[in-house]
Amino acid sequence: MTTEPLEATRAALARVRGAEPLVQCLTNTVVTNFTANALLALGASPAMVDVPGEADAFARVAGGVLVNLGTPHAEQRAAMTEAATAAREAGTPWVLDPVAIGALPVRTPLAHALLALGPAVVRGNASEILALARAGAGGRGVDAAEKVEQAAEAARGLARTSGAVVAVSGPVDLVTDGARTVRIANGDALLTKVTGGGCALGAVMAAFAAVTEDVFDATVAAVTTYTVAAELAAEGRPGPGTFAVRFVDALAAVGDTDLVARAALS
Amino acid sequence: MTTEPLEATRAALARVRGAEPLVQCLTNTVVTNFTANALLALGASPAMVDVPGEADAFARVAGGVLVNLGTPHAEQRAAMTEAATAAREAGTPWVLDPVAIGALPVRTPLAHALLALGPAVVRGNASEILALARAGAGGRGVDAAEKVEQAAEAARGLARTSGAVVAVSGPVDLVTDGARTVRIANGDALLTKVTGGGCALGAVMAAFAAVTEDVFDATVAAVTTYTVAAELAAEGRPGPGTFAVRFVDALAAVGDTDLVARAALS
Amino acid sequence: MTTEPLEATRAALARVRGAEPLVQCLTNTVVTNFTANALLALGASPAMVDVPGEADAFARVAGGVLVNLGTPHAEQRAAMTEAATAAREAGTPWVLDPVAIGALPVRTPLAHALLALGPAVVRGNASEILALARAGAGGRGVDAAEKVEQAAEAARGLARTSGAVVAVSGPVDLVTDGARTVRIANGDALLTKVTGGGCALGAVMAAFAAVTEDVFDATVAAVTTYTVAAELAAEGRPGPGTFAVRFVDALAAVGDTDLVARAALS
Repeated sequence: MTTEPLEATRAALARVRGAEPLVQCLTNTVVTNFTANALLALGASPAMVDVPGEADAFARVAGGVLVNLGTPHAEQRAAMTEAATAAREAGTPWVLDPVAIGALPVRTPLAHALLALGPAVVRGNASEILALARAGAGGRGVDAAEKVEQAAEAARGLARTSGAVVAVSGPVDLVTDGARTVRIANGDALLTKVTGGGCALGAVMAAFAAVTEDVFDATVAAVTTYTVAAELAAEGRPGPGTFAVRFVDALAAVGDTDLVARAALS
Repeated sequence: MTTEPLEATRAALARVRGAEPLVQCLTNTVVTNFTANALLALGASPAMVDVPGEADAFARVAGGVLVNLGTPHAEQRAAMTEAATAAREAGTPWVLDPVAIGALPVRTPLAHALLALGPAVVRGNASEILALARAGAGGRGVDAAEKVEQAAEAARGLARTSGAVVAVSGPVDLVTDGARTVRIANGDALLTKVTGGGCALGAVMAAFAAVTEDVFDATVAAVTTYTVAAELAAEGRPGPGTFAVRFVDALAAVGDTDLVARAALS
Repeated sequence: MTTEPLEATRAALARVRGAEPLVQCLTNTVVTNFTANALLALGASPAMVDVPGEADAFARVAGGVLVNLGTPHAEQRAAMTEAATAAREAGTPWVLDPVAIGALPVRTPLAHALLALGPAVVRGNASEILALARAGAGGRGVDAAEKVEQAAEAARGLARTSGAVVAVSGPVDLVTDGARTVRIANGDALLTKVTGGGCALGAVMAAFAAVTEDVFDATVAAVTTYTVAAELAAEGRPGPGTFAVRFVDALAAVGDTDLVARAALS
């Protein structure tokens, strides 16, 4: 199990750098800049086209699309539905990141409606994945302290019912398509001290999905590349400001040697 | 006067790091990222929930709320009123930052309307505080060159009439609740060369107020911690890009020793 | 041809630092922070006033205005038309950056409508300038691979018909007012790996135009200063995260000696 995903990751990273896939991001106002710079560093080409009337057309030509619900203003909500619908029709893989859903009354039903439009990947922390999997179970709210392994079964169920690959972020990340499950024990806690650390990963998943046939492989490759880069950036235990800068450098520099030496897939 | 606020500052910083207060930010599009990273570095937990329909619910569970008028688009204006109203009802301390009010016709009446909703803290430069204190005095406009000490009396008056602690930023910061006044002679001019240098301080005030009984003590502690961190980051006179990175590092690293060695409270 | 623009550039940079011109930016959500920090580093004073009802008043007192179409949400579109109209009436020079126009159906007609309001400068890559020059030629779309020299004739024509100075960005930048044309062979490819590398240049052009009688001279000076700073920041081939930080430092540090040693104007 450990060799195959590693080989697939190395190949996928090479394809991202070779193809420079166009990634359309409809994401929150806090992380647009960091997300675009992360994609550029990795070799992808970001485009934040999130205006109704344009989101549709762009999703048909983009290689991948990210829909992140962090600050879902009305106009962006309309553009999200447009982009997701167009992506589905055009066969463009798109990633749904249901940021902070559970109790919040605008984004929670929006996340469920978007899920019905068939994302290729759903990415979240344990609480968000549990909230999305609990569709229709009522307003139980979400305990932010819930852990990745507590969400593993819900993630597999969500993958099976939705058809999406589901990625749960945490100290050890979990990726599942309902049948296959891989855990990635890479990364660094410093990534949780940089806003957008998780959000930018959703965009990176869209970049990998744009150039990879198997969405499960693409998602594992995205998580592995991203979290190994975080380990490189964390060397010497910099402060969080310096870490964020070095992380962008690391996304540009991370290569085969780092993946082989560090990838902890199981 | 110098020992007590210093002790209160040290204790408040320890509480922020221990409690990781949840700080809801409704702030301008220019500084969202820097603000969130400053809060994370300090040990607080940022959440930029500024969508109508969600701002109310979140303000009731947040530890503190920031309302910053830098780019007050219509939807955010509605969310600001929602959040401020809910914060008042729930007893959540909230900070009003009336960015660039005076002559600008959308944000100026909005600032006065929000002031009536009872912020725990009002933060601004001398011109903004004077503009807010001049309510009803007509469109005299604001001289951006006005200095902190020229606004001292207006700040005390504003504190007394509004019930808010008022903080005036400048080379020497002033904090007053109408009865007590403390001046903090820390900081560095490099902070004025980083966009959001003042805006993020408003969010930090909300973090300190979330974990401190006395809002005056909380505000003094926030200004002192923030401006001492700026001094640490300014060592060696870096360029403004490097300074911004080091400042985030310094917010994570600043501790008792720095506060004792540097705090210039009077 | 090489001495005069260099002298004009040195003089214009000194004026920017001396006058600290107020630059109003109506720009996309991805680059607001980087743009403001670039202006501050250079010595200008940024203000992101992009709310309808305020954009008009501010454009009358600002030294220069930037209108950038990167994420043209409805409310910002209204503010853009307001600001451009007011700038024209008040004689405030304003810069139009028609980001990604061509096929996208909201921003493309908006760019043409704004062009009719008389920008002092139009800035774009070759594809965007060709798309703007092709007004009325129908939906041919734009080949993103088009090169600066392929757009030179269109740029001259656009300058003549619109009255604007036209700047085409690329490995060698071109600036023309229809009669005069200067090429600037400075800069570094790392600038294309930082989001907003082009967008912030539009704001810098507005800063230079605010303090320079001849808009053509101002635009050449802006491009030269900006791309020479990029060369300084690129020394040692840093990663893209580090480059972005050093570039802000370099905008603050770039001076006469650098301009004389490096400016490659022809």
